Amino acid sequence: MASKALAVIVGVGPGTGASIARRFAQSYNVVVLARNPDNYSPVVQEITSNGGQAVGISTDVSNSNSVNAAFDQIEKQFPGSPLAAAIFNTGGGAVRKPFLELTEDDFSNALNSQAKGGFNFAKRALPLLLKAKDSSAHPPTLIFTGATASVRGSANFAAFAATKFALRALAQSLAREFGPQGIHVSHAIIDGVIDIPRTKAWVFEHEDAKLSPDAIADSYWHLHTQPRTTFAFELDLRPYVEKW
Amino acid sequence: MASKALAVIVGVGPGTGASIARRFAQSYNVVVLARNPDNYSPVVQEITSNGGQAVGISTDVSNSNSVNAAFDQIEKQFPGSPLAAAIFNTGGGAVRKPFLELTEDDFSNALNSQAKGGFNFAKRALPLLLKAKDSSAHPPTLIFTGATASVRGSANFAAFAATKFALRALAQSLAREFGPQGIHVSHAIIDGVIDIPRTKAWVFEHEDAKLSPDAIADSYWHLHTQPRTTFAFELDLRPYVEKW
Amino acid sequence: MASKALAVIVGVGPGTGASIARRFAQSYNVVVLARNPDNYSPVVQEITSNGGQAVGISTDVSNSNSVNAAFDQIEKQFPGSPLAAAIFNTGGGAVRKPFLELTEDDFSNALNSQAKGGFNFAKRALPLLLKAKDSSAHPPTLIFTGATASVRGSANFAAFAATKFALRALAQSLAREFGPQGIHVSHAIIDGVIDIPRTKAWVFEHEDAKLSPDAIADSYWHLHTQPRTTFAFELDLRPYVEKW
Amino acid sequence: MASKALAVIVGVGPGTGASIARRFAQSYNVVVLARNPDNYSPVVQEITSNGGQAVGISTDVSNSNSVNAAFDQIEKQFPGSPLAAAIFNTGGGAVRKPFLELTEDDFSNALNSQAKGGFNFAKRALPLLLKAKDSSAHPPTLIFTGATASVRGSANFAAFAATKFALRALAQSLAREFGPQGIHVSHAIIDGVIDIPRTKAWVFEHEDAKLSPDAIADSYWHLHTQPRTTFAFELDLRPYVEKW
Repeated sequence: MASKALAVIVGVGPGTGASIARRFAQSYNVVVLARNPDNYSPVVQEITSNGGQAVGISTDVSNSNSVNAAFDQIEKQFPGSPLAAAIFNTGGGAVRKPFLELTEDDFSNALNSQAKGGFNFAKRALPLLLKAKDSSAHPPTLIFTGATASVRGSANFAAFAATKFALRALAQSLAREFGPQGIHVSHAIIDGVIDIPRTKAWVFEHEDAKLSPDAIADSYWHLHTQPRTTFAFELDLRPYVEKW
Repeated sequence: MASKALAVIVGVGPGTGASIARRFAQSYNVVVLARNPDNYSPVVQEITSNGGQAVGISTDVSNSNSVNAAFDQIEKQFPGSPLAAAIFNTGGGAVRKPFLELTEDDFSNALNSQAKGGFNFAKRALPLLLKAKDSSAHPPTLIFTGATASVRGSANFAAFAATKFALRALAQSLAREFGPQGIHVSHAIIDGVIDIPRTKAWVFEHEDAKLSPDAIADSYWHLHTQPRTTFAFELDLRPYVEKW
Repeated sequence: MASKALAVIVGVGPGTGASIARRFAQSYNVVVLARNPDNYSPVVQEITSNGGQAVGISTDVSNSNSVNAAFDQIEKQFPGSPLAAAIFNTGGGAVRKPFLELTEDDFSNALNSQAKGGFNFAKRALPLLLKAKDSSAHPPTLIFTGATASVRGSANFAAFAATKFALRALAQSLAREFGPQGIHVSHAIIDGVIDIPRTKAWVFEHEDAKLSPDAIADSYWHLHTQPRTTFAFELDLRPYVEKW
Repeated sequence: MASKALAVIVGVGPGTGASIARRFAQSYNVVVLARNPDNYSPVVQEITSNGGQAVGISTDVSNSNSVNAAFDQIEKQFPGSPLAAAIFNTGGGAVRKPFLELTEDDFSNALNSQAKGGFNFAKRALPLLLKAKDSSAHPPTLIFTGATASVRGSANFAAFAATKFALRALAQSLAREFGPQGIHVSHAIIDGVIDIPRTKAWVFEHEDAKLSPDAIADSYWHLHTQPRTTFAFELDLRPYVEKW
């Protein structure tokens, strides 16, 4: 279990996270993190039963102790395995409320799940990515999943936009600091509804109006395979009929 | 003390905050908030001795209890006084460190001082601004002070950029929600070194290379006096020789 | 007629241009340029009959010969008069068509009226603004009027967005080159319908839903009076009920 | 020669254009356009001698007659061949001069080569892309090559930034109009020096400091293969050590 490279994905439910895990499992061992094992267990089983290697660890990304415990376990379970890719894909904090109804807890929880969560994750992932630089087929990669709210503070989205803007700032800052050290840091703006079990019932006027989680995963894999001469920092992804 | 309108400014030290207080004190009673009374006392005395009305309240903007206590005191001390302007100008969170040296406390403190502070302040200011709509000479105004880090995540500025991006998201979201209700929400990007006591010794190649706090205050006053037909949301201010 | 400073405004019809002319005529002699004398004559008469000094010159800003002739006449008519402000406010090129119906002439005319027009105007204005540096009460100022289309390429607006994006690029480039030489270059994004004779009949759901040309002029004057320590480059102006 | 799909690339010299042609020639017949046959002949020969199909047509993209003649020839030579991809990659207009030394011709040439050229190219490409919708393996794709100057008006780059901003506006407008019709319109911001014969002698402090044209081509191919559920509009590409 030692030498094959590793991808760690946080925020793995039945949607984008699972697609990313599947895609990266074609080349790497994968570790998937989520609060609730029910979220990651199906994809772990699926990858394993297809002959891949996947491990799930129950993790609360907004809590540094929990993130640290997860990474301690990863390092114990995959000693010497270089970290090729770390992907931050949590969905927390997406509260929508008129501002005067937004509670202090709503706002703090939003900040903690994305901005603080991204910080906790990057703190543990970056040293491993740096260590993997010479043994990785592609430049070690750290990708953050953004949203429309990463670049637009809409009415009733004060909390979500605040934490998504903050996460984008973190991604930019890390790209500028760790890019020159050979780490590929990227930020993907997912602008639209993703086609996942939770949104299955949402009907749109046009067909194909929801983002494909597999296609998002393909774009993340493309980012990962870019050589250091030609890093993309930011990518916006949306369905062809999306208004923007 | 009842009917004259009120301006509340948080983040008042000897620099921009004091200039804003002085400028708005030409027309309003002013309340200045800062953690340390040493920061606001000189400008309170100056305004008072010039015949104006100014009150300082020691406040920790990152703490909602402290902000609530301050606003409770304001409402008691100025009953019936419409809130014409609320200005969020705190300087906290400006830590500069390589990311791997940044502690969890650094990051949390940064998020708390600007993003959370802005939230706490807006939660109490907005109901008062809404109430003042019909009695105010100019549209009630909420201004947030931004920085270069509000729009650029530079290397070694992960924490400060995260919280400044978040504050800008908050400002945008509030502008879109409360603009149509007649409240003028603005965000000013201060891009450069401000000419304050702390930066007096900083020497630049060219003269006039530092932002004037009085000129910043004049721009804030201009924003405040715009009619609702013609609101500016964002303004970037920098010295003529600043690289950008 | 020699020593009083001068403001030159191009694109003067009965709307924003006239308001800017009126506002700057409170302090300066003004020269107003437009293709059709019918557009500028009323405001010239109004300023003159109020004791101000105003001159109109028929000019096609997309034609460098015409712009050169206008500036030659200005220099002859106001010898020694420092150029305090030059304002580019033309409205040309605002064609709205499905792309496949857009003709080559539509596209070229749009590029010529704004991008090329801005170039022609700046080429003649900047040497005069530089010469005025030491004799002007405020830093000599060059302001470009932008629109929603300056920052957003909407469907059916390919030509107008192309030329407005180009004009903004020109403004940014000039701000970075001439700012350090003491010239204040600004760009105002006018995002909404302006309340002018042509739009009088347009009815909106809310009152005050159109931008006030006088308020726009006040913001331009504010930009002009900023000291070089504290230049704003960009300002977005919109009615309080505008969606953005 | 009828049914295999087609890619048309304009701006093909020994750098990015040739790499794009090579990459798309793995799946399509390619037509390469450039002013000077010396620029496209080597890649045409290379592709042909490797068993691919490539045709070069001498074209001045700033001249609509020349673009029309090229497309007329394409339609004659490849009747019934669906246009899968059209790529606008011209390098013209990159003049760098202090503004007051910039001539009217410099500015007009810059506007013509990119903004006008992009217009001429899109006018002929879009009807063919629309027609190819049902016969193309991937959504028909129109990609524009941008540069740092597409999003930043630097000092001494007024002409190049104006035309690159305009081209980006065109791309945005077309993406919003033709995306819902199933055409994938993208804009790539190439931020840095590309590793081509002309820049071979440019030495940088770090190795791999220049963009790889082949890696750019891989990203363009990735854009092309995205399904319509998940279109990227914009991508920024730069070397890992690039300052931004």
